[in-house]
Amino acid sequence: MKEQQAEKLPRPGVEALDEILGKPFPVLDDGFVRVVDYMGDDAAVVQAARVSYGAGTKKISDDRGLIRYLLRHRHTTPFEMCEIKLHVRVPMDAWRQWIRHRTASVNEYSTRYSVAIDGTQRTGPREWRTQAAENKQGSGEALDPEVGTRLTESEHEFQTLARGIYNDRIEQGVAREQARKDLPLCTYTEAYWKIDLHNLLHFLSLRMDSHAQKEIRDYATIIGRKIVARWVPQTWEAFEDYRFGASHFSRIETEILAALGAGDGEQACAIARENGWLRESKKGGWVRHRERQEFEAKLSQLNQMPPW
Amino acid sequence: MKEQQAEKLPRPGVEALDEILGKPFPVLDDGFVRVVDYMGDDAAVVQAARVSYGAGTKKISDDRGLIRYLLRHRHTTPFEMCEIKLHVRVPMDAWRQWIRHRTASVNEYSTRYSVAIDGTQRTGPREWRTQAAENKQGSGEALDPEVGTRLTESEHEFQTLARGIYNDRIEQGVAREQARKDLPLCTYTEAYWKIDLHNLLHFLSLRMDSHAQKEIRDYATIIGRKIVARWVPQTWEAFEDYRFGASHFSRIETEILAALGAGDGEQACAIARENGWLRESKKGGWVRHRERQEFEAKLSQLNQMPPW
Amino acid sequence: MKEQQAEKLPRPGVEALDEILGKPFPVLDDGFVRVVDYMGDDAAVVQAARVSYGAGTKKISDDRGLIRYLLRHRHTTPFEMCEIKLHVRVPMDAWRQWIRHRTASVNEYSTRYSVAIDGTQRTGPREWRTQAAENKQGSGEALDPEVGTRLTESEHEFQTLARGIYNDRIEQGVAREQARKDLPLCTYTEAYWKIDLHNLLHFLSLRMDSHAQKEIRDYATIIGRKIVARWVPQTWEAFEDYRFGASHFSRIETEILAALGAGDGEQACAIARENGWLRESKKGGWVRHRERQEFEAKLSQLNQMPPW
Amino acid sequence: MKEQQAEKLPRPGVEALDEILGKPFPVLDDGFVRVVDYMGDDAAVVQAARVSYGAGTKKISDDRGLIRYLLRHRHTTPFEMCEIKLHVRVPMDAWRQWIRHRTASVNEYSTRYSVAIDGTQRTGPREWRTQAAENKQGSGEALDPEVGTRLTESEHEFQTLARGIYNDRIEQGVAREQARKDLPLCTYTEAYWKIDLHNLLHFLSLRMDSHAQKEIRDYATIIGRKIVARWVPQTWEAFEDYRFGASHFSRIETEILAALGAGDGEQACAIARENGWLRESKKGGWVRHRERQEFEAKLSQLNQMPPW
Repeated sequence: MKEQQAEKLPRPGVEALDEILGKPFPVLDDGFVRVVDYMGDDAAVVQAARVSYGAGTKKISDDRGLIRYLLRHRHTTPFEMCEIKLHVRVPMDAWRQWIRHRTASVNEYSTRYSVAIDGTQRTGPREWRTQAAENKQGSGEALDPEVGTRLTESEHEFQTLARGIYNDRIEQGVAREQARKDLPLCTYTEAYWKIDLHNLLHFLSLRMDSHAQKEIRDYATIIGRKIVARWVPQTWEAFEDYRFGASHFSRIETEILAALGAGDGEQACAIARENGWLRESKKGGWVRHRERQEFEAKLSQLNQMPPW
Repeated sequence: MKEQQAEKLPRPGVEALDEILGKPFPVLDDGFVRVVDYMGDDAAVVQAARVSYGAGTKKISDDRGLIRYLLRHRHTTPFEMCEIKLHVRVPMDAWRQWIRHRTASVNEYSTRYSVAIDGTQRTGPREWRTQAAENKQGSGEALDPEVGTRLTESEHEFQTLARGIYNDRIEQGVAREQARKDLPLCTYTEAYWKIDLHNLLHFLSLRMDSHAQKEIRDYATIIGRKIVARWVPQTWEAFEDYRFGASHFSRIETEILAALGAGDGEQACAIARENGWLRESKKGGWVRHRERQEFEAKLSQLNQMPPW
Repeated sequence: MKEQQAEKLPRPGVEALDEILGKPFPVLDDGFVRVVDYMGDDAAVVQAARVSYGAGTKKISDDRGLIRYLLRHRHTTPFEMCEIKLHVRVPMDAWRQWIRHRTASVNEYSTRYSVAIDGTQRTGPREWRTQAAENKQGSGEALDPEVGTRLTESEHEFQTLARGIYNDRIEQGVAREQARKDLPLCTYTEAYWKIDLHNLLHFLSLRMDSHAQKEIRDYATIIGRKIVARWVPQTWEAFEDYRFGASHFSRIETEILAALGAGDGEQACAIARENGWLRESKKGGWVRHRERQEFEAKLSQLNQMPPW
Repeated sequence: MKEQQAEKLPRPGVEALDEILGKPFPVLDDGFVRVVDYMGDDAAVVQAARVSYGAGTKKISDDRGLIRYLLRHRHTTPFEMCEIKLHVRVPMDAWRQWIRHRTASVNEYSTRYSVAIDGTQRTGPREWRTQAAENKQGSGEALDPEVGTRLTESEHEFQTLARGIYNDRIEQGVAREQARKDLPLCTYTEAYWKIDLHNLLHFLSLRMDSHAQKEIRDYATIIGRKIVARWVPQTWEAFEDYRFGASHFSRIETEILAALGAGDGEQACAIARENGWLRESKKGGWVRHRERQEFEAKLSQLNQMPPW
C-alpha cells in the first residue's frame, strides 16, 4: 500500500477563477491583465505540505491553519505547486521592471517579427507627479494642473511625432528591429507571463509595495486583489497578514523593545548609544541616523515613544 | 483593439491525459509515477509562439509545422508555457540523480517528520548487471544468475537487518532524523514533482538516454512514452525526431564530411591530421583518439567509410 | 565621459580569506569544508548598489551603513555580485538536504564512475538524540549513554557489514552504479559547491537555524562563522542583526502590540478574540492555538505579558 | 586521507585576463564592455569534472581533451564553476534582449534614483538596414545612403527634442520615474552583469548567431572574442568547434543521409516522401517545405546533391 491515497478526479479547478478566465481587467489608459490558464488551488498547497511534513501536519487539522503556518515560517515550496498564466498589455517602461523577476516564463510580442503596437501610455494633465522629497526613488504629490496641461500637450505632440518617424522608417524599408530604436519607453507591449504562486507572491510583495512605481503597482494590485484573491483565498488572506501588515525588528531593535518592555529606558538608550544611534548634533538634537529614524517610525506605529 | 483575441473558454484540457489522471504507472518493483495535475497543451505552445513571433509565424500555417520549427531551432520559451505535476515513488538512489535537475518544484516525503517508508528496491537474481567495459559510468551484461542468486539472498538479509536496526532505534526513542542515517540508499521515497515542458524535455533527453542509469531511465521512459506522448503528442513527435534520432557533427567533422561529399578523401585526411586525429601507433594503425573514434562510429551510421 | 569611473586594479581580494584558502575545517567525525576560490567582497556589494541606486545612495556615506540598509530592506541583488566555491565532504544524508537549495552550482563525486568513498558517519555513545516532543521534525535531549553504547556498537557492526556487501559486489563484477544501492545514507560524499552571497545567506538562515538538523547545522555554522565572517565582515554583521537576532510580527500581532502600546488591553483582547485566538477550553484556560502561543512566546522575549 | 588533494595556493588567476581588467572595449557609437572581476579558469573546469567523474576521467590525460569531451557531450555543470562580472554600457533596446537571459545577476543603473544617462545610440547615414526578405526577424542590405542621410538627420533632431522634453519635465519637478517615460528605446543604460561560464556560452551561442540583432551581436562578439577567448582559451576553442561550426541533423535527415551514404537515392526519396517533403507543385517542382529546404541547404554545405 502506498503512502498517499489516489487523488480525487476530475482535475481540480477553482470556480471563482474559471468565471473570469480570459476576461481582461483594464489597467492604466490602455493596458490590461487577464488569466489565460492556471493549475492548483489552496488545496494543492495543503496536499504538497502534507506529503512533505507527513505526520507533522496532522496536528494542524484545518487547511487554513496549515497555510498560515507555512507562510509564517517561510516554508515556501508548497506554494510552488500552483501556477498561473497571464496575458498582459503593459508599457515597456513598466515591463522593464516586471521582467527583472527571473523566475517566470515569458513570451513577449516581438517588434522584430511584427510592427510595433500602435499605442503609448498617455499622461493626463492631473496625472503628473512630483519627485518625492524623502524617497529618492519615488513620486510625491500631483503637479500643478496648469503645468500638467502643458506637459500633456507636449507629450501628445511628441508621441505623434515618434510614431510618424517609426512609420516613415518602415515605409522606407528600414528593418523593424532597427526602426523601433526611437520608440518612446512607454510604448505598449504584450506578453504571456507564467509564474508559480510562491514567486508571484514575492513579486506582489515588492510591486504592490508603496515604494514601487505607480504604474507597475497598478498592475500588481489588480493581479493581487482581483485574481490571486479569487484563485487561492486562504493563501491570499495569510499573505496579507504576514507580508503586508507585518512588522520586522532587527536584533538591535528587538533588544531595545525588550528593554522598554522591562520598563528600563536607560538600558534602551544604552543599546542605542552603543550602536551609534545617539550622537549629539551641534545644533542640539541627534545627528541624523537612518536606522534610528526608521525605528522611531515603527515605535510610533506601536504607540510607543522613544526613550531618548 | 488589442493584438490578441479573447481566448476561447472554458479552460483548456487534454482528454487523453484526463483519462489517466491519478492513475499510477508501476516502475521497478515497488515504485510508480502518476499525473496529479497539468496546465496547457500543444495549442498553448503554439499560442505563446504566435504572440512572440507574431506575423513571422503566419507563414507556418499549421501547428505541427510550427512546433517542429520551434524545437528544431531551439526556440524553447513557448514550451515553458506548459506545466505538469507528478506524484512519484522512487528509490532515494535514483531520486538523488533526479533532483539534480534544479528547475523543478519539489515536495518530498520527510523522514524527519514521519517514519521512513518501509520499502526498499529489491534486485532479482537475473537483474544484477556487470560493469560496462567501455562506458566508465554504465552497466553491461547481466551477471551469471548463480552469482545473482547469492547476491539477491544476501541483499534480502541485509535489507531486513537494516530495517530492524531502524525500527529498534525508533523504539529506543532515537529522533527520526538521526535513526534514518543507516537506511540503504535504495529505500523508497515519495514526492510531488512539478516542472514545465521545456525543462521536462531536457530531463528526458538526459534520463531516457542509453547512458543514464537503468533505474532512472525506467522512470523517464514511462514519463516520456506514457505521459508526455499523451499530453502533447505533436511536441513529443518533434522531440523524438530532433533529440533522440538526431545526429550532431562538430566543425571539424562537418569539414571532413564536406571533403568526403566533394570526393576529396585526401583533403579529409589532411583535416583529420591537422587536428591530431591520425598519429601512427608503433604497433601499426592509429593511436587511440577519442574524437576520431566517435566520428568513425557516426560515419558508420551514415553508411560511410573513413578515408584513412 | 562615462557614469562609472574605471575600477582600481588589480583584481580585488580579501586577505583574511586568502589566508585560509584550501584549508579544510573539520566537521562531524570525518567531514570538512574548505574554500577553493571566491569573487568579490563587501566593497563589491557596495559598488553594485551604487550603480543601481546612483545618486540615491550618496546620502549613505559609509559602506557599512549602505550594506545594512540593503539587507534591512531586502535589496538582495547587490549580494549576488559575490561568489564563493567550497569543497565539502559530507554524509549523503545531510547532502540530500543541502542540494535542495537549487540556486547553487554543484559537481559531486560520482559513485557511478568511481568506487564509493570508504567512510560513513559514525555516532558515538553520547551522540544519540531523542525525538523532540514539541518539534515534530527535530531532536531533543541526548539518549541514555548505556542505550547509546549499544546503538553505537550495533551501528559499527552494521556499517562494516554494509561495506563488506558493497566490496563483495564490486569483486563479483557488479556495476558500480548498482553495487552502491544498499550503502547507508550516512556514507560520505564530496562535492564542489559554488553559490553567490545572497543565496548563501539564505541557505545559512535556514540551515544555521535551531530547527535545522544538527548535522547540516554543523556545516552551516562553520561556513557562516569561519568563512563568511572572514570574507565579508560587514555583510556578516548586518546579516546577524537582521536575520538571526530579528523578530517578526504579523498584521494581527502588530495591531495587538499597538493596542498594548496605547495601554488598551481590552482592545488587544478584542483583536485576539476576533481572530479566534481566545476560545475557552472546557477545562479552563484557552484552547490550544498555535498562532496565539507563538505570539505569547515573542511577547515574553519583549518582557511583555499577554493581556488575556 | 581525503579523495582530493589540497589545492595549490595562491588563488588561481589568468594573466591574459588580468591585463585587461577594467579596460573598456568600445561597442557601437558610445557603448562599452569591460571585465570587473572573475573566478576560475580552464583548470577549474577540469578540476570540477575530475571530482565528478573521478577515475572515469583518468583515461583522458590532458585538460584540452577533457574540456572538448565535456562540451561535446553536454556535460555542462563543470563550466558553471567559472564566473565573470562585466560592466556594460548598452542601449536599452539591446538591453531588453540581453536580460531575457534569466540566469545572470544584474545591477542596472536606475533612472528612478538618478537622472537618465544623456546618451542615445545614433545611426549613421550608411548604417540603416533594410528588412530581410527571407528572415522575418532580421535585417538585410544597407539602405540607400541618400535615404539614410535623411533618416539620420531626422533621428538627430528627434533625439534632441526627446532629451529636451525630458529635461523640461525634470526642471518642472516631475518625478524621474515618470519623466523618463518618453525617452527613446535606444537611450544608453549601464549595468553590472555577472554570469557563470556555462550560461555565458549559451548566451553567446544565441547572441553571436547571425540571426541575432546586429546591436547585441556586436556586444556578444566582443565578449566572446576579446574576453572569453583570453579567459578560458581551451574552452573557447572547443566552443567554437562544437557550437559555431557544428551541424545538426534530425532523425529524418540522418536516415536520408544514411540512405545516400549507402548509395540508395530511391530509399532517400522514399523517406522524404513519407514525411511529406515531396509534394508536386502545380507549376512543376516541389511545393515549398521548410524542413526540406533547410535540409537541402545543409546538404549543399556537405557538397552533396539532393536525390530528388
